[in-house]
Amino acid sequence: MINVGIIGATGYAGGELVRILVNHPEVEIKWYGSRSYVDQKYADVYRNMFEIVEDKCFDDNIEKLVETVDVVFTATPQGYLAGVLNEELLKKAKFIDLSADYRLKDVNVYEEWYQIKHKSPELIEKAVYGLCEINREEIKGTNLVANPGCYTTCSILTAYPLVKEKIIEPNTLIVDAKSGTSGAGRGAKIPNLYCEVNESIKAYKVASHRHTPEIEEQLGYAAGEKICINFTPHLVPMNRGILVTEYANLKKKADGTYPSSEEIRKIYNKYYKNERFVRVLKEGEVPETRWVEGSNYVDLNFVVDERTHRVIMMGALDNLVKGAAGQAVQNMNLIFGFKEDLGLNFVPVFP
Amino acid sequence: MINVGIIGATGYAGGELVRILVNHPEVEIKWYGSRSYVDQKYADVYRNMFEIVEDKCFDDNIEKLVETVDVVFTATPQGYLAGVLNEELLKKAKFIDLSADYRLKDVNVYEEWYQIKHKSPELIEKAVYGLCEINREEIKGTNLVANPGCYTTCSILTAYPLVKEKIIEPNTLIVDAKSGTSGAGRGAKIPNLYCEVNESIKAYKVASHRHTPEIEEQLGYAAGEKICINFTPHLVPMNRGILVTEYANLKKKADGTYPSSEEIRKIYNKYYKNERFVRVLKEGEVPETRWVEGSNYVDLNFVVDERTHRVIMMGALDNLVKGAAGQAVQNMNLIFGFKEDLGLNFVPVFP
Amino acid sequence: MINVGIIGATGYAGGELVRILVNHPEVEIKWYGSRSYVDQKYADVYRNMFEIVEDKCFDDNIEKLVETVDVVFTATPQGYLAGVLNEELLKKAKFIDLSADYRLKDVNVYEEWYQIKHKSPELIEKAVYGLCEINREEIKGTNLVANPGCYTTCSILTAYPLVKEKIIEPNTLIVDAKSGTSGAGRGAKIPNLYCEVNESIKAYKVASHRHTPEIEEQLGYAAGEKICINFTPHLVPMNRGILVTEYANLKKKADGTYPSSEEIRKIYNKYYKNERFVRVLKEGEVPETRWVEGSNYVDLNFVVDERTHRVIMMGALDNLVKGAAGQAVQNMNLIFGFKEDLGLNFVPVFP
Amino acid sequence: MINVGIIGATGYAGGELVRILVNHPEVEIKWYGSRSYVDQKYADVYRNMFEIVEDKCFDDNIEKLVETVDVVFTATPQGYLAGVLNEELLKKAKFIDLSADYRLKDVNVYEEWYQIKHKSPELIEKAVYGLCEINREEIKGTNLVANPGCYTTCSILTAYPLVKEKIIEPNTLIVDAKSGTSGAGRGAKIPNLYCEVNESIKAYKVASHRHTPEIEEQLGYAAGEKICINFTPHLVPMNRGILVTEYANLKKKADGTYPSSEEIRKIYNKYYKNERFVRVLKEGEVPETRWVEGSNYVDLNFVVDERTHRVIMMGALDNLVKGAAGQAVQNMNLIFGFKEDLGLNFVPVFP
Repeated sequence: MINVGIIGATGYAGGELVRILVNHPEVEIKWYGSRSYVDQKYADVYRNMFEIVEDKCFDDNIEKLVETVDVVFTATPQGYLAGVLNEELLKKAKFIDLSADYRLKDVNVYEEWYQIKHKSPELIEKAVYGLCEINREEIKGTNLVANPGCYTTCSILTAYPLVKEKIIEPNTLIVDAKSGTSGAGRGAKIPNLYCEVNESIKAYKVASHRHTPEIEEQLGYAAGEKICINFTPHLVPMNRGILVTEYANLKKKADGTYPSSEEIRKIYNKYYKNERFVRVLKEGEVPETRWVEGSNYVDLNFVVDERTHRVIMMGALDNLVKGAAGQAVQNMNLIFGFKEDLGLNFVPVFP
Repeated sequence: MINVGIIGATGYAGGELVRILVNHPEVEIKWYGSRSYVDQKYADVYRNMFEIVEDKCFDDNIEKLVETVDVVFTATPQGYLAGVLNEELLKKAKFIDLSADYRLKDVNVYEEWYQIKHKSPELIEKAVYGLCEINREEIKGTNLVANPGCYTTCSILTAYPLVKEKIIEPNTLIVDAKSGTSGAGRGAKIPNLYCEVNESIKAYKVASHRHTPEIEEQLGYAAGEKICINFTPHLVPMNRGILVTEYANLKKKADGTYPSSEEIRKIYNKYYKNERFVRVLKEGEVPETRWVEGSNYVDLNFVVDERTHRVIMMGALDNLVKGAAGQAVQNMNLIFGFKEDLGLNFVPVFP
Repeated sequence: MINVGIIGATGYAGGELVRILVNHPEVEIKWYGSRSYVDQKYADVYRNMFEIVEDKCFDDNIEKLVETVDVVFTATPQGYLAGVLNEELLKKAKFIDLSADYRLKDVNVYEEWYQIKHKSPELIEKAVYGLCEINREEIKGTNLVANPGCYTTCSILTAYPLVKEKIIEPNTLIVDAKSGTSGAGRGAKIPNLYCEVNESIKAYKVASHRHTPEIEEQLGYAAGEKICINFTPHLVPMNRGILVTEYANLKKKADGTYPSSEEIRKIYNKYYKNERFVRVLKEGEVPETRWVEGSNYVDLNFVVDERTHRVIMMGALDNLVKGAAGQAVQNMNLIFGFKEDLGLNFVPVFP
Repeated sequence: MINVGIIGATGYAGGELVRILVNHPEVEIKWYGSRSYVDQKYADVYRNMFEIVEDKCFDDNIEKLVETVDVVFTATPQGYLAGVLNEELLKKAKFIDLSADYRLKDVNVYEEWYQIKHKSPELIEKAVYGLCEINREEIKGTNLVANPGCYTTCSILTAYPLVKEKIIEPNTLIVDAKSGTSGAGRGAKIPNLYCEVNESIKAYKVASHRHTPEIEEQLGYAAGEKICINFTPHLVPMNRGILVTEYANLKKKADGTYPSSEEIRKIYNKYYKNERFVRVLKEGEVPETRWVEGSNYVDLNFVVDERTHRVIMMGALDNLVKGAAGQAVQNMNLIFGFKEDLGLNFVPVFP
């Protein structure tokens, strides 16, 4: 049994952490941190928690917090954790950061894309990028996890095997991503109002979204070279879910032919057949966000287009679960030696 | 550990039974019954179950089924179970019927509202109406549960304490109910298409919906007299959830005054304070379906209108959980002596 | 050709006024008033207007405005118009007020329900309640129209014939209303965010909504007596549309029988057969908001419940059109002697 | 004043034709054709038309129809019109075909992608592809218009100027398209049910959708060479609207640089500045389907990505208006010499 604290417990990702952790058999939540709702009952902010969570929200006194808990989840704005974290705190508790502060190894890239001065660049090297399926072993030994972004988790897992196995030309990769609206957070802004989002779809931050360098960095490690891609997020009128549709040119093989659908399927299976939370669908099926909603699954599949010699890869996940809180708990399970899926065996809720 | 069979496993309520039961620690599902999908893999019908359920669908061979399982859930069209059930079968397995076949004690009322000849009226008396909060003790000893309807569960639980305690005039009761579209089932019909339901609301079966006599019968028991009410269902563009708004005249007390909000709150608390799945909200709060989605909770509250001397009672639940599959599992838990909330401790999913 | 000014042009009702008026053959919009967006291009606020409206937003200089235009529409917060209007202004331009400032004849009722001191109570008597189907002749001669609320338009028109003809007991009237989310306005508030509204339904302001006294006053005139009713609004996850479901006890006739469905249908037809924007549906049909969306229609129907001797009346309209901007333009047409449906012949948009 | 007949008047595109044409000042609808609803009142099928359309539906007696009307719109399944059309009929009436029968000039491509034998290949050459902004002059003189598909209208108009001006490498073009659910038609199929579509997004017909060769053929004419692209449609939980996000490599110029954003903007303006229904948005804005809903507009914009030397082009339209019925009426206006926007000056409906 471990004690847990959450800073930023009243955002959507924080709320999802609470939903998962209140039923986790090895966890007790000791700290519901929320600047906006200090001293208010958590269940007054999220009424689904009525009669489930009795605690009030605390402010973010991190010095006190690390005395109380074994692990701190930070679901906070960019720059917050980088501004307060230090070696002392890391000795006292593990940190799983759902923000982007320690995701990018190159601090210049971080500062350029986020337009924030990084306050603790010396800690970046200590952080492990918490994409469990790829960095499982490193995660087990760390005390600082950079929990991947929602778009990035989906984008990377979808393309990773084909990049790693050099099946595609990595610089031809185009990621067209579609997200439910919970990804936009709980801020009271006109563009997020019901009537503004409902019955519409749009792209946003075209060629400028901050998840771009994160995808490039991680897939670059897989490719063994720096890569440069296109990533375009879209806002979809639904609460949860991310779907990515990824396009890439197939590499011509030595014999002048292109990789076949069968070859590619073998590669996906090689990487993911034994993965608890990655489901490679059967041929002809497409990932749909409804089939993963509320769960920690990623559903993947692909189509080879023999006319254009491109492969179209598709991935779907729940942005608040595998794209945020679920993956954070999966990381926690790895760190503390729990079964990787402990507390995460949610069956997707449909309809 | 008990073995379970489901007849009608590929409707929405059947799918929800599967979602709940695959993680139930005392249950193994042995039989996925579905006329429409015989011999197809269950997970091909509901792809959320991919890599979770490996079984195929069977047809509804009930003779064979009762040899295999301890309990049979029937999520079937009206008349199906009444047409096949008999004493022999009831000796071999418990039955929890999600259809209306054994809900109404008066077979004439059944035949009038459902326009079906009841094939086994002699079994009606044996059935226990499975509204756990009201008939808990009878349920424990039965082998035939008539699992209440979704609208009726919500409508009855919302008004029950005030009817039972004679706070309201039962014949003034008006139930205005609003349901998500999963209540309409998975049939391929034009009125249930996305574009027909989305961005619209309508009443349907006004003054003629079959859940009316069920509410009247059960609340009649509470009132100690026959009652006659209005019930109007509405179709709402959302997947899950039922909200009922109920209106009734307060009974004038002997001293000429009307019951106060405080008195009424005490009565609700008396009946529901210790109920695991009924949450009486705080004063001033209203039930909202989003706060119960995916869970077995019913959220209740009320407002006394001193201008009109009426009380407006409100209740919200998830029609597929507390309104169908969750309550069925709660009944199963009671019958088999499991903890009443075993496998049902879902935290509502928000957003 | 008349000149028109709109104060509050950037709310949802203001936007709908613009949508209607830019194509009105007898109107030129001269003034797009918006405190929040002064000096910004109107089409930058509402991008549907790109290349349609070239003007910028002005502040609300009403003195200047009345020199420029023939009629002023105010889609403003409660209390605004009452605070600035006076006899001088009324001499210079007609006013059609979409707020509630002049709807209630009893200033005490206004001040009690709105919790605002009325700044120009002397003008209340001059105002005509702009429910065109009922007050057509008075509207034609006025220079101050109190444009009815969205809920009230629907609630009153639905019950009016039966109250007027004394078919129902007016004090048994219960109005259960359901509204799309545009009714909540364009304010940036958490409860109006997409993820908070989507996939949920709730009642709000139970027994305390400000449209209650407006319905009571107008139906009271029809009844020839003060009446007291229940009105409960609900928030529905859709952009537009109001549906009301109204319940009332039928009055027993002298011969001891109750009014029949045929008698009631005759009454509805008597009042509405020749009304351009009121459609009494055929027997057995129910009003649905999808069939009126984008148009100025109100669809009505009813069911007589012979078990309870109640009539269930139903009405549906588009809250931004017949419930706000459309009706305001209908009033303008009446005042200026245009054809009543000029610029309002929108066919409902489906799906 | 011309007389019009519609075959297939009860699908969603047919319904939209009716919505537009009943208010068209130069049109009288003489024939509501519908195999499924013969002899039923049209307004019983689409209740938005109650008290607007009094006619009944006829079957598709095309011989009789051409005696009655000046122009026939066919919103029919693939192969229908090709099976009945001939030179005689074309002498008697103009035909505007919303199906794909005459869109592809190469009958082999048609038969391969549609898996239908073309019954009147000799008429293909006579047909004009009805993309008004590109083929305006040819349309004016034709009696057979192949009205473009919804995806294709949006995809072609978005990329056309840059293909035509050789700014992009046409074979690198990737079209990622997102459509509302009305595009799936009104057939009663499980995948189109509300609960199956709502709260989900998916790709479908990946690398195999029939609009692919249509885009390739038309953009091929612009490019002056055969081109081969990727097109991926997605189903979005909304009623109306198509958004395309298109990716293409910029062609390096003779001086070794790439076309700038300013150069590209000039090109878009050159092609579309004077187009009534194409709106090139301001820099930094993105097309959103909500801003064109209910109207005949296409909104376009683009972003140059200097990191990848690609241009991301975006386009949004209402699939039932500019993507089907609106464009068909625009074609009709051209053929009959009416003002091109007659009856089409709809302001987009928001919200």
